[in-house]
Amino acid sequence: MRELMQPSKDEIKLVEVLHALADPVRLTILGRLADSGRESCSGISETIDVHQTTMSHHYRVLREAGLTWTTVEGRSRYVSLRREDLNERFPGLLDAVLTPLRAG
Amino acid sequence: MRELMQPSKDEIKLVEVLHALADPVRLTILGRLADSGRESCSGISETIDVHQTTMSHHYRVLREAGLTWTTVEGRSRYVSLRREDLNERFPGLLDAVLTPLRAG
Repeated sequence: MRELMQPSKDEIKLVEVLHALADPVRLTILGRLADSGRESCSGISETIDVHQTTMSHHYRVLREAGLTWTTVEGRSRYVSLRREDLNERFPGLLDAVLTPLRAG
Repeated sequence: MRELMQPSKDEIKLVEVLHALADPVRLTILGRLADSGRESCSGISETIDVHQTTMSHHYRVLREAGLTWTTVEGRSRYVSLRREDLNERFPGLLDAVLTPLRAG
């Protein structure tokens, strides 16, 4: 199968991170990952009422921007938040976005 | 002349702020305002090699998202950063974005 494009820490770009953050569904995914650490894409998608094709697009935007790691295990994909990489690249950004999200 | 749409502090929405931030020209404008406090749109536009129509779009996105205040004085428009409002709504977000911008 094809390799998934995932930027190295130093390749993560501020504008792309901000673009990836600027969507309510992607913020919901990130909020879940902030709590759970790591989840299967199918598990997350089950709880979000968005078409599968659209969800795949959101996972790709998050991965390519460097917000999430994606691993493929058998037929499943798992995503996790790249919290340490993001905190090193853009200190405080992730918390500044996730905190108001929790507050609703 | 028509009123400019500028959201009140409580109307500022995280997703719209993130969308407004997710553009290199708009980040450049914000970086300048962070240093200068307040500037004329024409003064900023002179130093950025982008078509005037596009610049007007960027000023509008920033204003409508609640990142900047725009005031009209005679034939000129002035913009300033809504730092206090943003820091109250989303603590740490503005600094988390502007700091890496300064670092290049």
